[in-house]
Amino acid sequence: MSSLTPVSSLGEFGLIERLTRNFPEQNPDVLRRIGDDAAVVRTSEGEVQVFSTDLLLEGVHFDLAYVPLRHLGYKAVSVNVSDIAAMNARAYGITVSIAVSSRFSIEALDELYKGIRQACKNYGVELLGGDTSSSRQGMVISVTAFGKAAESDIIYRSGAREKDLICVTGDVGAAYAGLLVLDREKAVYLKNANVQPDLDTYDYVMARQLKPEARVDMAVRFAEMGIRPTAMMDVSDGIASELHHLCRQSGTGATIYAAKLPIDPQTVSVAEEFSISPVTFALNGGEDYELIFTIPLSDFEKIQTQTDITVIGHMTADPKLIQIVMDSGEVLDIQAQGFRHF
Amino acid sequence: MSSLTPVSSLGEFGLIERLTRNFPEQNPDVLRRIGDDAAVVRTSEGEVQVFSTDLLLEGVHFDLAYVPLRHLGYKAVSVNVSDIAAMNARAYGITVSIAVSSRFSIEALDELYKGIRQACKNYGVELLGGDTSSSRQGMVISVTAFGKAAESDIIYRSGAREKDLICVTGDVGAAYAGLLVLDREKAVYLKNANVQPDLDTYDYVMARQLKPEARVDMAVRFAEMGIRPTAMMDVSDGIASELHHLCRQSGTGATIYAAKLPIDPQTVSVAEEFSISPVTFALNGGEDYELIFTIPLSDFEKIQTQTDITVIGHMTADPKLIQIVMDSGEVLDIQAQGFRHF
Repeated sequence: MSSLTPVSSLGEFGLIERLTRNFPEQNPDVLRRIGDDAAVVRTSEGEVQVFSTDLLLEGVHFDLAYVPLRHLGYKAVSVNVSDIAAMNARAYGITVSIAVSSRFSIEALDELYKGIRQACKNYGVELLGGDTSSSRQGMVISVTAFGKAAESDIIYRSGAREKDLICVTGDVGAAYAGLLVLDREKAVYLKNANVQPDLDTYDYVMARQLKPEARVDMAVRFAEMGIRPTAMMDVSDGIASELHHLCRQSGTGATIYAAKLPIDPQTVSVAEEFSISPVTFALNGGEDYELIFTIPLSDFEKIQTQTDITVIGHMTADPKLIQIVMDSGEVLDIQAQGFRHF
Repeated sequence: MSSLTPVSSLGEFGLIERLTRNFPEQNPDVLRRIGDDAAVVRTSEGEVQVFSTDLLLEGVHFDLAYVPLRHLGYKAVSVNVSDIAAMNARAYGITVSIAVSSRFSIEALDELYKGIRQACKNYGVELLGGDTSSSRQGMVISVTAFGKAAESDIIYRSGAREKDLICVTGDVGAAYAGLLVLDREKAVYLKNANVQPDLDTYDYVMARQLKPEARVDMAVRFAEMGIRPTAMMDVSDGIASELHHLCRQSGTGATIYAAKLPIDPQTVSVAEEFSISPVTFALNGGEDYELIFTIPLSDFEKIQTQTDITVIGHMTADPKLIQIVMDSGEVLDIQAQGFRHF
């Protein structure tokens, strides 16, 4: 028997590239397959459907020791709706399938579905289908989101050009700060459920981790501002990983500035508590579900007055150079992340 | 703390009904949500998209001790494409997400994806996306299938009327016969991989279990025959369960005839070996992925010459009576099945 190769040797992106090569591609209406936030299929002249899917496993993607089921349901929807928003499309429906072991009661599943329902209401999406089955261990959640858009409105990861400005909505790094706080408090919760840690100090970062909001507002706002981003994706793995995706698919490099990264004061406090640089949170934290996008330099004035859009840098010519300028003036290469699930 | 209710107390269908009630339904373009083989969404005047999703867990839905990974990949696609075919729509794409523990090698996943790729080629569907992640135990596969059709071509479960003929494509019960054979041989395989059981005798039933084919041919054939079924679904849980679905959604009862059930001779042999009635295989076996559909009595002549379509009975007026007439003339109530995964 020849020796076998462990899955971990390829990393998540290498593995999916290997597994999905040599698949037939003959349908000209399939405009984008694997490799963007979502798949894009033309359904009629000028109209497209946009699909995104996610598979979440207890113990790998979520830990029920500190994630309330209602929040988990909400987040499972947010994550997928965010992928649709990242294509500049509007999500209208989801399917949800779950598998649970016998340790879960119906009341627990009711909580999960309350969160899913709340997210459906907030985002204006409908539950289209799905099923339930048993699992031998733990909970598995599979969500697929369905969206639509005019074909001309779709924004891929691949459209950025040299000198385009790199922008981020909201702030980044807070979700990871929230995760660290929850991780620290987990032991306390487990030992004694009556000891309630003082979480008021951490309300913002915890909400960002537990109940992230997809930026479904941005498609409308881009239209209002008269802006069409040249490339876009959502910040699920951290700015570092997303920059690598944008640059690889657009054939560009990038330079961003540490001082420009939009980081909430509470995130900075948590970073200090843990003696980690807040910049590391922003670059490698992930799960912020903000949008990172590029616009032509000429559109700078249009976004200048938008308080929750921050220009963090610009695209450059050399695809080998993806860099960050630190406050000290030092220039560092940004390493790709995003293999955490292997 | 109040007492909690075990999930198993509701059954799969009761549970999904409870969890999905009170969800917002405001989009008039969503023509069918939960409760049919697939969701149906209008995308433009007269055109619909059709979506189906499935979550498969090792140890619950498949057993890698006797299912080759390549067949598993093929079957995972077939099952979902079958749901699209059951709406009389044409599948054009799938997404596949998998989670695997470290016991799986890349070579093993290559085999899985070879089966997925083969199915994509056979069915003319494209792999649109998906992802891979790790699991703490076993393999999880999530497949979503995407199809389209003219709105007027879609066939729901709810359109059957009294006196409509109940028809089945191909034969039923063989997949369950194959499962029993595989189950019996599993111990042999596990004890000594060099002992190859004589499986030639069981080639057909094993192929039906391991590598089922979705009836993607039927939509075209219905058009050629000039037939429009009044209701349709695929046979995934067995004729008994499917009849209950069709009757409940159509508001009818049904009478079928044991002597009419299309059962392959090899299925009959296996049934005899196991001292089980072949009728039980057909009613409660499932996983045949044939289509069960109803047609107006007046269309009987159009299907009479079709060798692989069998009329097994007819719809009746009283929704409380779903019955089978045995060879002896005895009339039995058909019990619903389909809760096997809890």
